[in-house]
Amino acid sequence: VRKDVAGYDLKSLLVGSEGTLAIITGAWLRLLPAPEAALPVVAFYQGAEDGTLALRSVLQNGLTVAVLEYLEGAALAAAAGSFPAAVPDGAGFAVIAEADGTAAEAAQLRDDLVALLGPDALSTHAPIEARAVRELWQWRDGVSLAVTAQRGGKVSEDIAVPLDRLGEAIQGTLEIGARHGLETCSWGHAGDGNLHSTFLIDSRDPDELARAEAAADELFDLALRLGGTVSGEHGTGVVKRSALSRQMSPAATRLHEAIKDVFDPKGLLNPGKKMPL
Amino acid sequence: VRKDVAGYDLKSLLVGSEGTLAIITGAWLRLLPAPEAALPVVAFYQGAEDGTLALRSVLQNGLTVAVLEYLEGAALAAAAGSFPAAVPDGAGFAVIAEADGTAAEAAQLRDDLVALLGPDALSTHAPIEARAVRELWQWRDGVSLAVTAQRGGKVSEDIAVPLDRLGEAIQGTLEIGARHGLETCSWGHAGDGNLHSTFLIDSRDPDELARAEAAADELFDLALRLGGTVSGEHGTGVVKRSALSRQMSPAATRLHEAIKDVFDPKGLLNPGKKMPL
Repeated sequence: VRKDVAGYDLKSLLVGSEGTLAIITGAWLRLLPAPEAALPVVAFYQGAEDGTLALRSVLQNGLTVAVLEYLEGAALAAAAGSFPAAVPDGAGFAVIAEADGTAAEAAQLRDDLVALLGPDALSTHAPIEARAVRELWQWRDGVSLAVTAQRGGKVSEDIAVPLDRLGEAIQGTLEIGARHGLETCSWGHAGDGNLHSTFLIDSRDPDELARAEAAADELFDLALRLGGTVSGEHGTGVVKRSALSRQMSPAATRLHEAIKDVFDPKGLLNPGKKMPL
Repeated sequence: VRKDVAGYDLKSLLVGSEGTLAIITGAWLRLLPAPEAALPVVAFYQGAEDGTLALRSVLQNGLTVAVLEYLEGAALAAAAGSFPAAVPDGAGFAVIAEADGTAAEAAQLRDDLVALLGPDALSTHAPIEARAVRELWQWRDGVSLAVTAQRGGKVSEDIAVPLDRLGEAIQGTLEIGARHGLETCSWGHAGDGNLHSTFLIDSRDPDELARAEAAADELFDLALRLGGTVSGEHGTGVVKRSALSRQMSPAATRLHEAIKDVFDPKGLLNPGKKMPL
């Protein structure tokens, strides 16, 4: 049923509950038709300041993009070598947007994006051919691996902040890394305010790992200070339970514990996960 | 924050809880840009059978309409006199769809709708001028009043069913009304499977009112038999508590009661509402 306001919305309570409230044995999925066309636009900028202005201009102009991503600093540098076109000298920030819809809609929105992002960009790359589009997204899929390959390891968190605080979150990530003497970068889903804030490490170096974990812990405080969340997409599990305690008020913590108790009074369902410590 | 998977989704639990779990003192709303154009297409059919086939063809062809409404039988008859164009003789069912987006998108989708709905329709009405579009929706806003005006009163429910059961729900509504000797019709939001199933009565006639209330109660069983819900949009309140008990399993009832107890152990928040009896 598409519309149902009879009882409480228990479905939404279970979605994202990480198996702590119930075992889901079946699901109905709603399918949307695939768009006829999806045309990406990549724009390169010198740094985070002009890059986040560009992101904001897409949002403020109400362009209904299907994708709005960014790569900053060391993340862009790590992946630049395999970018399927030329990356301009001095590029320290990349914005990736995608226009989708019917062929005509996508072409129009793509032109709007090029017109909006192009003038202040060092360069843009806006492939049209299906193969070139596919190459771009294959490249994007490899970004995390390219970043890991720089030092052999990384410590990364998936904080999210309100859209108007994204620039501060990118800058704050760099400051935390610098304070701990770590090579630092971020990339992620700008349209969701969701960062993959990352510290590049040699994971065989216990001192570096310890510094990166301390720095990662400060990322949570950064997200909360900006009105955000400690997890935009990966969830809480065991690792972020202490961060969750900082995000939630005592009243919210009490509600979480009581709801868990309602669904699972014996504590059998995925014990030790999701709950604030 | 657009994305947040840190804790349980308490926001969705509160949305639609009818004030029984908490008092909401503030809300952030996400705004979407208004479409540049919105073009309605009305198609008239002889009856519910060809009308529901037309509705299904819109859904099955994946046309992403902004609106998909219907009016059937006595509902259409009650409102036909004020329809802003000619209603063809013998029309017993109307489909109203709307195409929105940029001017080009809306025009294209409108043409697709006319091509899809037109051939089997008695006639179509697809205004383009802003004034004519406005007149159509003003007319649609008056349908409920026009239906009420036939006998001075009505008893109406807002059941919803899976989209592929809509035809059975429309037919089932008519059968229930016939069994109770009541003039009966329905109209509503076909794209949501949401019917306003309605019995027309003289509300000063206690016998007729009693029959209509008995018939309305059977609508709930009809909705549940078709895999639907006793309320698509109006909620539970006091009136539908007994129907809610039929919709929910004993386990779901227990969860609702326990969640209410977690948020409101003293039973102070909108007492007597929303809970299954």
